Amino acid sequence: MDFTLPRPAEPGMTLTDVDTPALLLDLDAFDANLDHLDASLETSSIQVRPHSKSHKCPEIALRQMAHGAVGVCCQKVTEAEAMVAGGIPNVLVSNQVVGPRKIERLVALAQHARVSVLVDDAANVAALNAAALDAGTTLDVLIEIDVGAKRCGVEPGKPAAALAELINTSDGLQFRGIHAYQGAAQHVRSPGERRALIERAAQLVRETLTLLSAKGISCDIVTGAGTGTYPLEASSGVYTELQPGSYIFMDADYGRNIDDDGKPIHEFQQSLFILATVMSRTSPERAVVDAGLKALSVDSGLPVVAESGAEYLGASDEHGVLRVHDRSRFKLGDKIRLVPGHCDPTVNLYDWIVGYRGDTVESVWPIVARGALY
Amino acid sequence: MDFTLPRPAEPGMTLTDVDTPALLLDLDAFDANLDHLDASLETSSIQVRPHSKSHKCPEIALRQMAHGAVGVCCQKVTEAEAMVAGGIPNVLVSNQVVGPRKIERLVALAQHARVSVLVDDAANVAALNAAALDAGTTLDVLIEIDVGAKRCGVEPGKPAAALAELINTSDGLQFRGIHAYQGAAQHVRSPGERRALIERAAQLVRETLTLLSAKGISCDIVTGAGTGTYPLEASSGVYTELQPGSYIFMDADYGRNIDDDGKPIHEFQQSLFILATVMSRTSPERAVVDAGLKALSVDSGLPVVAESGAEYLGASDEHGVLRVHDRSRFKLGDKIRLVPGHCDPTVNLYDWIVGYRGDTVESVWPIVARGALY
Repeated sequence: MDFTLPRPAEPGMTLTDVDTPALLLDLDAFDANLDHLDASLETSSIQVRPHSKSHKCPEIALRQMAHGAVGVCCQKVTEAEAMVAGGIPNVLVSNQVVGPRKIERLVALAQHARVSVLVDDAANVAALNAAALDAGTTLDVLIEIDVGAKRCGVEPGKPAAALAELINTSDGLQFRGIHAYQGAAQHVRSPGERRALIERAAQLVRETLTLLSAKGISCDIVTGAGTGTYPLEASSGVYTELQPGSYIFMDADYGRNIDDDGKPIHEFQQSLFILATVMSRTSPERAVVDAGLKALSVDSGLPVVAESGAEYLGASDEHGVLRVHDRSRFKLGDKIRLVPGHCDPTVNLYDWIVGYRGDTVESVWPIVARGALY
Repeated sequence: MDFTLPRPAEPGMTLTDVDTPALLLDLDAFDANLDHLDASLETSSIQVRPHSKSHKCPEIALRQMAHGAVGVCCQKVTEAEAMVAGGIPNVLVSNQVVGPRKIERLVALAQHARVSVLVDDAANVAALNAAALDAGTTLDVLIEIDVGAKRCGVEPGKPAAALAELINTSDGLQFRGIHAYQGAAQHVRSPGERRALIERAAQLVRETLTLLSAKGISCDIVTGAGTGTYPLEASSGVYTELQPGSYIFMDADYGRNIDDDGKPIHEFQQSLFILATVMSRTSPERAVVDAGLKALSVDSGLPVVAESGAEYLGASDEHGVLRVHDRSRFKLGDKIRLVPGHCDPTVNLYDWIVGYRGDTVESVWPIVARGALY
């Protein structure tokens, strides 16, 4: 016998017939989230380049393009390949690409689409330049500056300006702008702290732009922002592009951010769920579902049961243990929805995302870049 | 252009040419682990049925069979399908299978291989029986009893015996034995506590066997045990089969279990690693590698850097931040090995496992049941 992984659903099915655990997308909520981002930026001239690391799904990227996105961000070269193959004409690899094999693939991809990439190291600039020249092409590059997240990126100001000058002397490269993503600010709970962090990031960008300008280096693009802070970058006056990713899905951890009144922010709707089946019910207060560590990522906390009356207590590899408050419910075979703690690494566990409206499956989209780690 | 996920390596490559992040298997350590399990059970008549949920890879299962395994355990029907398709003739789905679609596939699989499954619910027994009768076959079933893990399983003793009687009156089912896995004991740090938990589990099995015997119900199989406790079950006198999974790989969390002298147990060797590349090095004390939450599971703690001189501080989706103690090392482009915190959910993130000896890639095995969630 042969083995191929079966699809969990087909369009037209009712939700109760979907095999579990399955990744569900509430299409009404998803559409509302796309619309809400448009509406919230209606009076702004800023461009949107959604992050495809959240969904890894060209079908979703195409819908973001239809909503006016200028292109998508990717974190990996193979993720970018999947997006270009899926019809996206403009990708920013919003990450450093290091190593000959990855660089070769990146330059090859630039023959098929508008491709740009981040740099934060002079040796890496030289390697990218050599590969682009070898291929007889030019590659668009942006400098990542560290605006407080303490991850990748050169220091703002002089180190960034020095790298821009190096790029300007590299015939295979075209300097396009600055990447200033404050990732650490996205899940800071208090709005005042988020505001302070993004104000600081914008100030560091301004200082860098002033230095570049003094050297006669023009900077077309300043890109950054995530779902947790994007209105702040949009109104900063320095950012030209926004990169939200999670806004289409949301998750339990984003649900813990609060507004100025101390209330949870419900700007975007929860559209992403894990459908799970109650597979063991041997105790009145305990139900075990078939969604554990291989069905959801617990790095940012446990999932939340979407239906009232139960609490997800703990995950093992293939099991989730629920404490049941309403003993008459959560019967063997019942299907329930879970809100994952963190959307991006949870989506990466699945080969398909099952779109539904009401009680009916409408779409089964392949997560083409699932596992595209390279 | 088309997109297919590229393989990270080919046999014959040197490790430094492997694309990252990649799942590595040190084949010498893997072979030693297979040999050590054999040696440690040499004087015992107990059978070994390794758990394939750890590796999801038929190539590995076949090597376990060559070491005398009676078959493998699987946690999911699709995982079992992948193992049977890969040449494994005997699989125990060591889990409850609930829902018509899953049961139909399970019964269909029983036409291709010796298939057994766990039950802990009378309605589920009836559903399995009906499906087996419909297909004109009989299905082997074992009763899962809860020996202290508080997850799935009926209570030992009378509830288990009542379920066995029900199975005995079900013409489509064959009662084969008892599943008594103390999962919660595997990562209990102290050997005294592990011993007490397994002694208690064995006692509960004995009581259940006595009841079954009084009812004239014979019980061929008592199965359970994991890598953290298997010598205890092996010497208990009641278990007939052992189900270790992680022993072939090990992980940072198992490395925290201690022996009677309070020292870390090094019974099995660490054979599983994530190969990662230093992709950003903008600060003397910080190196960023390309292996984050989508390349390793942090549910049981962060990964440990296999090479001395650095510490893995934190993971974001595609990045790992290291604190570097030896500033002259961990240069941009360097490849390093990480020991994952938890092997099973980490393996499930990869499509291939790259086997190597010394510095050379020897095998690239597909993880066929990766994502086999159903």
